Amino acid sequence: MTDHDDELCYKTARELSALLRGREVSAREVVRAHLERIERVNPEVNAIVTLVADRALDAAAAADERIVAAGADGVGVLHGLPIAHKDTHNTAGIRTSHGSPLVDGIPDQDDLIIERIRDAGAITLGKTNVPEFAAGSHTFNPIFGATHNPYAPDRSAGGSSGGAAAALASGMVPIADGSDTGGSLRNPASFNNVVGLRPSPGRVPTWPASNAWTTLSVKGPMARTVADTALLLSAMAGPDPRSPIALEEPGARFARPLDRDLTGLRVAWSPDLGGLVPVEPEVAAVVEASAGVFEDLGCVVERACPDLSEGEEVFRTQRAALFEVAFGPLMDRHPEGLKQTIRENAEAGRRLTGPEVARAEVLHTALFHRVRAFFERYDVLLLPVSQVPPFDIGIEYPTEVAGVAMGDYLEWMRSAYLVTSTGSPALSVPAGFTPAGLPVGLQIVGPHRADFAVLQIGHAFEQATGYGRRRPEAIG
Amino acid sequence: MTDHDDELCYKTARELSALLRGREVSAREVVRAHLERIERVNPEVNAIVTLVADRALDAAAAADERIVAAGADGVGVLHGLPIAHKDTHNTAGIRTSHGSPLVDGIPDQDDLIIERIRDAGAITLGKTNVPEFAAGSHTFNPIFGATHNPYAPDRSAGGSSGGAAAALASGMVPIADGSDTGGSLRNPASFNNVVGLRPSPGRVPTWPASNAWTTLSVKGPMARTVADTALLLSAMAGPDPRSPIALEEPGARFARPLDRDLTGLRVAWSPDLGGLVPVEPEVAAVVEASAGVFEDLGCVVERACPDLSEGEEVFRTQRAALFEVAFGPLMDRHPEGLKQTIRENAEAGRRLTGPEVARAEVLHTALFHRVRAFFERYDVLLLPVSQVPPFDIGIEYPTEVAGVAMGDYLEWMRSAYLVTSTGSPALSVPAGFTPAGLPVGLQIVGPHRADFAVLQIGHAFEQATGYGRRRPEAIG
Repeated sequence: MTDHDDELCYKTARELSALLRGREVSAREVVRAHLERIERVNPEVNAIVTLVADRALDAAAAADERIVAAGADGVGVLHGLPIAHKDTHNTAGIRTSHGSPLVDGIPDQDDLIIERIRDAGAITLGKTNVPEFAAGSHTFNPIFGATHNPYAPDRSAGGSSGGAAAALASGMVPIADGSDTGGSLRNPASFNNVVGLRPSPGRVPTWPASNAWTTLSVKGPMARTVADTALLLSAMAGPDPRSPIALEEPGARFARPLDRDLTGLRVAWSPDLGGLVPVEPEVAAVVEASAGVFEDLGCVVERACPDLSEGEEVFRTQRAALFEVAFGPLMDRHPEGLKQTIRENAEAGRRLTGPEVARAEVLHTALFHRVRAFFERYDVLLLPVSQVPPFDIGIEYPTEVAGVAMGDYLEWMRSAYLVTSTGSPALSVPAGFTPAGLPVGLQIVGPHRADFAVLQIGHAFEQATGYGRRRPEAIG
Repeated sequence: MTDHDDELCYKTARELSALLRGREVSAREVVRAHLERIERVNPEVNAIVTLVADRALDAAAAADERIVAAGADGVGVLHGLPIAHKDTHNTAGIRTSHGSPLVDGIPDQDDLIIERIRDAGAITLGKTNVPEFAAGSHTFNPIFGATHNPYAPDRSAGGSSGGAAAALASGMVPIADGSDTGGSLRNPASFNNVVGLRPSPGRVPTWPASNAWTTLSVKGPMARTVADTALLLSAMAGPDPRSPIALEEPGARFARPLDRDLTGLRVAWSPDLGGLVPVEPEVAAVVEASAGVFEDLGCVVERACPDLSEGEEVFRTQRAALFEVAFGPLMDRHPEGLKQTIRENAEAGRRLTGPEVARAEVLHTALFHRVRAFFERYDVLLLPVSQVPPFDIGIEYPTEVAGVAMGDYLEWMRSAYLVTSTGSPALSVPAGFTPAGLPVGLQIVGPHRADFAVLQIGHAFEQATGYGRRRPEAIG
């Protein structure tokens, strides 16, 4: 391992892309550097649970040939960039465990998101760790164990895209894919000082899906910078006939420069969702300081938050229904094979009545319109991503937040999942550290389908602050 | 009444629009001619149940001033065209009954579809008759009675956009809006020898809506020609922040010329949805003859149909859930105030379990993918709109189709509502007459979101056949 190689591993995807397209570096060099770093730091972090080094080197060699033949304009937007895929995304020919021995195996077929990433020229290094079936925001499972936070290895990496976030933070990959139901792209970004975007439903079409119309679960991009997150989104986004809710706007838009003058932007912020959730003081302090950054950028900043309280029933009901479909049959076949929290969610889904499901949709609609009206007065809403900083890796979930007892494994993530129910795009961007040096993310929530604006605003914040540039000292 | 005036009333919307824009005729003349025709023929047909003649003449005068001031390029795409609105669409300041004494009143606010039609320059003449709460495909209600079929006044005009279709057929308006859950834009088009498009969900954004995400009910356009239907769609379609599922494509696309050479088009047809539904022989004969027309147009025509059987459970479950939300509270307050069929649907919704609702979404997804695969092999699918020709106006619904007993008021409409569950756009276009002279429509079903292609194909069929030009002789 040389310093030169480590430097490649902390370049941004955009920097690496420029080097690769200018043929100043080969895909083989880039892949080799990242494989070496994985070999060195992954044992401490446990972010990448399946590695396909030979396949990656072969793909890199092919990529190097391709750019010679086709030129920089003839290769995809992710040409030569190493990536690792969330282990709940099916990868043809590569072990995909979903964090559960019940379904662990080698799929025949890529999920649509994997197909797009590969078609854009990225090079798969392996798979990133997840909680069992991506349930819960702490990455541990009976097959691979827990992922450690690179900033504090005795702390959680969050989840469910926890392996992805930790791999990014520790320089194992410059880009990573994830998914988000109740915060799974945002919470791990916050815990690991990286960037995660929960896009608008339909922005990244999902296939296969048992319910093709659900707006609850989405796929999305993660990276160490907002611009890299947008670059990856540009490959993931755009219509596909396999998703009936796919947005029609082509993905290419997201590869455009994000620079924007924020002068006069109407910014609302709340450290606690208008008093709706308890938040640890060191997290609230970071959100408040972030609001100050926007004031310095010339924005009109006010403390305000729409009433998100209906989001609780909407999220709980929709999640229970989703879990009943996804895990009910598995639960019947293997009563002891699923963790208790998943069983509880699926059982709650079994108890739902039709009118309860319908009522959730009516509340969902009311919430959508309330948030829409809020965004007539404000351009963006700043919230905490997580109510707590990264917690002890040995616990299943925080049972108390700011002195308030949590009822279950979801409740401490309300700051993320109430935003899920609004349907808004939401970005998690590095916003500072607790006095103990733990990362804290800022949640930037925008109007319906305003994914690009959210990325622009996050980019301006990142440029003004630079928290994401602080590397983890605990590893490597 | 002069012959000249009647001639204005049977011009197409595009012809009228050209005359209005060229200032060869004034909006006042056009409106006056239509008001006179309504006065003469509506008593026989009972299509328009609320007339706002003075308001219409004022609006026409204002339109005439506007085009003088702004020129033809400065007025909307529907400038000066008379229209009547479905009485389930709320119209600010104009009586809106929904066909029920329980909610009959004067709304304060226009529905989004009305707002768009007015903003595009159309002139509201009044409201068109509907079944009670638009439930069922036969237009009768306790306030206004039944709408008569202009081609055979002792027959049903279909429904639920039955007043709209009968008004079009009898020359009272050149364009009309409607809505479609289980066939309500298609069945009345078929029964009245006019055109109705069930657009893709989200094509015409719906607001207000109790469930903003439903794909079951859609709004859409009707007219006497496919090109006029497309013209009206161009004013209705396009994104709006009030609908989270609104498609992003601007409506203007639909105003473009529809001409297309169909040579080589891969056409599938089925007179009975692959044997899934009974169909009266004179309807099946029209569908078969229509397939022959496409052969003559150079298409590759095959008898084929995807398996739509899952659509039954999908439609029934989603409809019951929708009715429970929409009518449950009203039913509790007024147990005798709703017709039995609505009560039965709402009660079925109350009995649904959460897992049943979830299962319907899973089947819905499977059906979507099966139809998607079908449309990889075929460009379009031809089906009957209705399984029966216009039936006796005195019955509530056909209790038997081709010798098969019908279980309830929905079952005879399966050829329409199974298509609803696919999510595909579907056009009803005049396709001929029974030996008794009753109109029969052809249902042209296209791939996901292919509304424009469906209109093009319908337009080519219409040009080749011209059935829509046969005026009703029974009235006026």
